[in-house]
Amino acid sequence: MREVGIGIAGFGTVGGGVLSILRRHADDIEARLGARIAVRRVAVRDPVKERAVDLAPSLVTTRLEDLLDDPGVAVVVELIGGVDAALELVRGALGRGKHVVTANKALLAARGEEIFRLAREKGVDVYYEGAVCGGVPIIRTLREALASDRINALRGIVNGTTNFILTAMAERGEPLSAALAEAQRLGYAEADPTLDVSGGDAAQKLCVLAQLAFGARLAPADVLTEGIMALEPEDFRWGREFGYALKLLAVARRCPNGDGAARGNGQDQLEARVHPAFIPQGSLLAGVRGAMNAVVLESEALGPSMLYGQGAGALPTGSAVVSDIIDLTRNILAGSPGRVPLPPEKPLVTLRPHDEVRCGYYLRFSVRDEPGVLARTASRLADRRISIAAVQQREQNDQGKPVPLVIVTHEAREADVRAAISDIDRQPSTLAPTRLIRIEASV
Amino acid sequence: MREVGIGIAGFGTVGGGVLSILRRHADDIEARLGARIAVRRVAVRDPVKERAVDLAPSLVTTRLEDLLDDPGVAVVVELIGGVDAALELVRGALGRGKHVVTANKALLAARGEEIFRLAREKGVDVYYEGAVCGGVPIIRTLREALASDRINALRGIVNGTTNFILTAMAERGEPLSAALAEAQRLGYAEADPTLDVSGGDAAQKLCVLAQLAFGARLAPADVLTEGIMALEPEDFRWGREFGYALKLLAVARRCPNGDGAARGNGQDQLEARVHPAFIPQGSLLAGVRGAMNAVVLESEALGPSMLYGQGAGALPTGSAVVSDIIDLTRNILAGSPGRVPLPPEKPLVTLRPHDEVRCGYYLRFSVRDEPGVLARTASRLADRRISIAAVQQREQNDQGKPVPLVIVTHEAREADVRAAISDIDRQPSTLAPTRLIRIEASV
Repeated sequence: MREVGIGIAGFGTVGGGVLSILRRHADDIEARLGARIAVRRVAVRDPVKERAVDLAPSLVTTRLEDLLDDPGVAVVVELIGGVDAALELVRGALGRGKHVVTANKALLAARGEEIFRLAREKGVDVYYEGAVCGGVPIIRTLREALASDRINALRGIVNGTTNFILTAMAERGEPLSAALAEAQRLGYAEADPTLDVSGGDAAQKLCVLAQLAFGARLAPADVLTEGIMALEPEDFRWGREFGYALKLLAVARRCPNGDGAARGNGQDQLEARVHPAFIPQGSLLAGVRGAMNAVVLESEALGPSMLYGQGAGALPTGSAVVSDIIDLTRNILAGSPGRVPLPPEKPLVTLRPHDEVRCGYYLRFSVRDEPGVLARTASRLADRRISIAAVQQREQNDQGKPVPLVIVTHEAREADVRAAISDIDRQPSTLAPTRLIRIEASV
Repeated sequence: MREVGIGIAGFGTVGGGVLSILRRHADDIEARLGARIAVRRVAVRDPVKERAVDLAPSLVTTRLEDLLDDPGVAVVVELIGGVDAALELVRGALGRGKHVVTANKALLAARGEEIFRLAREKGVDVYYEGAVCGGVPIIRTLREALASDRINALRGIVNGTTNFILTAMAERGEPLSAALAEAQRLGYAEADPTLDVSGGDAAQKLCVLAQLAFGARLAPADVLTEGIMALEPEDFRWGREFGYALKLLAVARRCPNGDGAARGNGQDQLEARVHPAFIPQGSLLAGVRGAMNAVVLESEALGPSMLYGQGAGALPTGSAVVSDIIDLTRNILAGSPGRVPLPPEKPLVTLRPHDEVRCGYYLRFSVRDEPGVLARTASRLADRRISIAAVQQREQNDQGKPVPLVIVTHEAREADVRAAISDIDRQPSTLAPTRLIRIEASV
């Protein structure tokens, strides 16, 4: 039986998942492939550490070069994470004509361009289903199933940690600190949760997805990014009154060339943003609970579609990595690397300036309870041609304390809304900075 | 530029969608493939009919043989529907070493075994993403993404017509006849809706899916099939009181070899059934409205996952067919047909007898309003070791008229439940046949 050799670099949670899936399903995989996948080397940081998955000592090395130098390793599986060491490993592998499987979104978001260029030059493949949304086959779907379609929008819950926290806040009315502490206790959030709660992790994933879905070339810094730390239980309560659930969404939306702000090189523009968003309570994304992930696509031929599943964990992400290994093995056996093309070399869309983002807005003002406040606030919005869809004001409070005034706008332009808030926040009757949450009505 | 020639047989709704997608995205597709997909022949029934999509007269033929005999046609796209003529065409194409794309679930459910065997012998590919759930990439996901996983259950809303009807009944309290008439008026149901409302269409799709997901070899007649025609608005109302939504589900569930009823050849058994099912109101499947489709998979590594999208229509199904054409073109260009193996030659599971199905049951009895009825009914269930989860009885009615008594059971065995109903329906206090709806609690 033919054999394809792989080397695994990094043997943490996902690495253990990959090896246990390869072992448990070895017979199935052989039957389907007509070939054996042989793990030749596993590079670990600490060779004597106790592990849940047994490793024969002859497989183990602490030197990444051992994977690169082994001519029997046709596929390097990069699971070490981070950018620098991972990039060096991937460069080394591609340079030697080895194919690469990686689950490293940070690496792809930061250095994808270089990696794909190198792979193109060397005629080898880079697969990365595990880099975004764990076992949800979104990369494969974008690369293959939608090759015949044109995607107009992508909206996703791509970070399980924050969705776990927001679900707890929504369902149990918990403050963010308590929900975060619970997520940490249960292992859904890391000791330093910054990358997740800041929206940074979701922004990295959005860059990887937008490249495939739209041919965009984005760095995480290009993405309008707002985390969840400022959300308060009362935002969830207000949202419910207006019929909304609150989720951290990653959004990329095509704005066709020729519409208002799109100008310049004749390309379509792309809104790219990660922020808490109110979405209709009855929508499918609103039903995505706990640490689950989901991505909704809006495309020309297919219309709306959604993929849903576990976004992280040894087995879900491990299963995505193994699918990639199997796919690459098929290409190797068939002599057809490069079968599915890498993302386009040149960007096909340009980033839409964040000022030009258009959506609905939920604005929670903290105002003095006195006559004329609503009129003045509404006037400042009207000055900027922002149209009001709904208003709620709580009944009178203790004298002098701020009362909440909540206004939901129709679709408006981000820069206009920001300017109006700035005007309103300067008024003496405004007692605390206005809270803004964007509304994605069409999920 | 290289060119791959295709022939399209049948030019109805989906055929028009395929051609318009191929034309509209020709540049994109060429850029991605590095080759051109050339439509060489289109076989139609009526060559003079007016069509939404223009066809050059030189392309048009009324003879299917013209596609088979054209050496420039490498891929035959079968969109004529039905079984007999389609089978002859597919046999002819495979016999001449041409690859086949089909969107014909009836053909695959009835003659898949023969078609796959012939394709294996000739070393050519059969792709059929459009045959199940239109543009939802479920076939691709089962064939490729889950190659490294083991699926334990598949539950889906795979018929848009019935889901449209059930959504109208649930949301507007309409009787079935009115909802069906509306579906017909809007083009979601055919003049003769039998295949849809009987569950027969869903059973065909389940056969195709179960073959890929479990290696099952099922004919539609093997599937426990119940349609929606007997559902009444009050079933929806009762369901809501118990926290359930009502959907027509296609279910295939692995029962591992060694559990109670599984015996014989050492293989796992598979429950295969299509029937109205109560599912938890908050579940994702409950949120699938109108003519949309969705399939939930439960697999060992990936855990729960869902695919959702439009199950029918010119563009959704057309886009699935075009994805298959592109994929096949990639295989042809790379010289790697057979890259993704066809379904396994020998069945890997055996059908579980329907008597051994286990799930929860909703039983709506029509009983005389007299003392002792509840006790007698409960006793008959207890006789068969069926455990009661919840009971509701409406308050007293006009003398002599039947009152509804609704009992929800814990998981029970189908044969036991049927036997208990038969006992109860023979009692003089039972005034009409008992209604049974199965409960799928874990979607």
